[in-house]
Amino acid sequence: MRDFIYNIPTKVYFGKDQLHHLGEELKRFGNKVLLTYGGGSIKKTGLYDKVVKEVRDANLILHEYSGIEPNPKLSSVAEGADLCKKLDIDVILAVGGGSVIDASKFMAAGRYYDGDYWDFHSKKVPVEKALPVVCVLTIAATGSEMDTTGVITNEATHEKKGRSAELLRPAVAFMDPQNTYSVSKYQTACGSADILSHIMESYFSHEKGMYMTDTAMVGLMKTVIKYAPIAYNDPENYEARANLMWASSWAINGFTRIDKGTNPWSCHPIEHELSAFYDITHGLGLAIVTPRWMKHVLSDETLDRFAEFGIEVWEIDYNLPKTEIAREAIHCLEDFFYKDLHLTSNLTDLGITDKYFEIMAERVSNYSGEPRYVEMSKQDVLDILNASL
Amino acid sequence: MRDFIYNIPTKVYFGKDQLHHLGEELKRFGNKVLLTYGGGSIKKTGLYDKVVKEVRDANLILHEYSGIEPNPKLSSVAEGADLCKKLDIDVILAVGGGSVIDASKFMAAGRYYDGDYWDFHSKKVPVEKALPVVCVLTIAATGSEMDTTGVITNEATHEKKGRSAELLRPAVAFMDPQNTYSVSKYQTACGSADILSHIMESYFSHEKGMYMTDTAMVGLMKTVIKYAPIAYNDPENYEARANLMWASSWAINGFTRIDKGTNPWSCHPIEHELSAFYDITHGLGLAIVTPRWMKHVLSDETLDRFAEFGIEVWEIDYNLPKTEIAREAIHCLEDFFYKDLHLTSNLTDLGITDKYFEIMAERVSNYSGEPRYVEMSKQDVLDILNASL
Repeated sequence: MRDFIYNIPTKVYFGKDQLHHLGEELKRFGNKVLLTYGGGSIKKTGLYDKVVKEVRDANLILHEYSGIEPNPKLSSVAEGADLCKKLDIDVILAVGGGSVIDASKFMAAGRYYDGDYWDFHSKKVPVEKALPVVCVLTIAATGSEMDTTGVITNEATHEKKGRSAELLRPAVAFMDPQNTYSVSKYQTACGSADILSHIMESYFSHEKGMYMTDTAMVGLMKTVIKYAPIAYNDPENYEARANLMWASSWAINGFTRIDKGTNPWSCHPIEHELSAFYDITHGLGLAIVTPRWMKHVLSDETLDRFAEFGIEVWEIDYNLPKTEIAREAIHCLEDFFYKDLHLTSNLTDLGITDKYFEIMAERVSNYSGEPRYVEMSKQDVLDILNASL
Repeated sequence: MRDFIYNIPTKVYFGKDQLHHLGEELKRFGNKVLLTYGGGSIKKTGLYDKVVKEVRDANLILHEYSGIEPNPKLSSVAEGADLCKKLDIDVILAVGGGSVIDASKFMAAGRYYDGDYWDFHSKKVPVEKALPVVCVLTIAATGSEMDTTGVITNEATHEKKGRSAELLRPAVAFMDPQNTYSVSKYQTACGSADILSHIMESYFSHEKGMYMTDTAMVGLMKTVIKYAPIAYNDPENYEARANLMWASSWAINGFTRIDKGTNPWSCHPIEHELSAFYDITHGLGLAIVTPRWMKHVLSDETLDRFAEFGIEVWEIDYNLPKTEIAREAIHCLEDFFYKDLHLTSNLTDLGITDKYFEIMAERVSNYSGEPRYVEMSKQDVLDILNASL
């Protein structure tokens, strides 16, 4: 068990009637606000008007940057960061999901950086200063609203990379489960797959953390498994939307993996390659890759953990042989959880071929850092990708 | 499910090799430090010397207030607060357990208050300003290191009361499980009973919160049930001490009950009366009262929750009838958990009679606030107290 520093100061306003606190929170940081959002769905739902009203009522100066795309691009980050410099912005108000918040985080850091904005993601420079980010969340998925990471796609190099820094953690997050009622069935499914993956990536770790955080992860996984199908089938079910929303934040804000060191992940890097080349939805990519990864790494060494996963999370009878429990757990994930959410089960159906697999596998395996749960050579990654076709 | 604001900014340094951060953290708040502690056990263990060295190495000015007793007294709070005024202290460094930290919180608030210091606990005045408190924890029990509450005993009136305020939450907490190796078997047992009680008080609530926080509570309860006997029998077991320490903070920092409103407790108020009159150890009092309270409130209305408690926490076969599961759960708590920790099972053995039961029951039932899980009349409290003899 490693020493750790716990420091998650994001303030969260959770629930139906909280947006009236927005003005007072923004004011703590100054009076020039850059509102960032995506393709405009917040205008259709009416959230845009509500947010703008709060900002105006607080007598703040409002600027806007819109059009942030899913898998947000470096060029958007650059435009936003340039705008922050030009307008001398005090605080960024990100209204949207993970893409909007991720992009906003690097606009916030870019505000104080004069080099190539990709330098953050290529780890050429540290994040030493950043504007505060306040967010209004509209989808339960990436957990960006309470974590330190932003994933950006460099469209020139087909690279999709995450970068983390304490300064990037949003200062305040507004989470109203009702704002996720309009999330489509497909995006609800993909978001839920993403949340579950975040927990599984930490749960399957070579590093022994605390039993206590293990129990928290089990609880979070059970929460996603219970409520994702309910939200999928009954989009305005407040209880389901609330549980998914709060679980999305806690899946990745650091609480569950803080005692496990850097704990490098396995499925996310493979999926990042897929969506960098094909722009597929992140959660869908994870739903396709994860069961293949599990089958690939299941061995005598990992059997105990997979059996625990089966017993604790999927409530499989602990009297069965461990190998059977492990296989049944993967079967539950693949053939019940993902299937019930109608997530496509292979890459072929998405029009993806093995054309770029070599370069993807090269990139994933060309990795220096602490060991993954199970080390992956280039051939291992190729095997997982080919099994995903 | 209620709206809530989540805001737990306490920064935690957890582990074996963290105390070297103490100087830098104290410095954030100023240079005049009041070190508070109890009866001097920290001198025997060597922790006092380590702490003083860090403070001195950081060139801070060190003052001391020692002798804070278990069930800390208002007179100690008053002396400490007066000292903070006189010496113009910038930050309080509380080294100890719940008693030291609780007292330090109200010294911190008292620093800025010129009336009777009991006014905070009699709710005559709000806590509007307080010095920052940095703590070095030496026992896993009350969770005071990360929560907003301090319980103080007014020795003149035999009243023991808690008061909460956001400003009282410690700014920084240092938690080294090794510092709890020297905690006696008896105090380890009482501390564990206290932690478990904090979770159960929230778990048994008339208010439906989120399933997700329910799963977190189940995990925390399982953690205490698993590791309390290990720490009891093997005091230098790091894994056990670490799990109990981290669970103690999360049992009560607000995370598990944030979505349940004020959620007033049941067993703590009864125990507070007992220890106000007899100065018994808080956790021991809880271990005696809790099973009696459970038997008293078990009814058709509460059966479902007690059955969940039995199935999820005590892993009792869900095929059994609910009433059997509920009774078996109480039996597990009383005759396995508390007994394995060798906690006295009745008040008579502690020399307590029914002498003050009338006044205790009067005080507990004379309560205005949101409804308890099950309302308790004076007669209910008397029944529970008499059953505890």
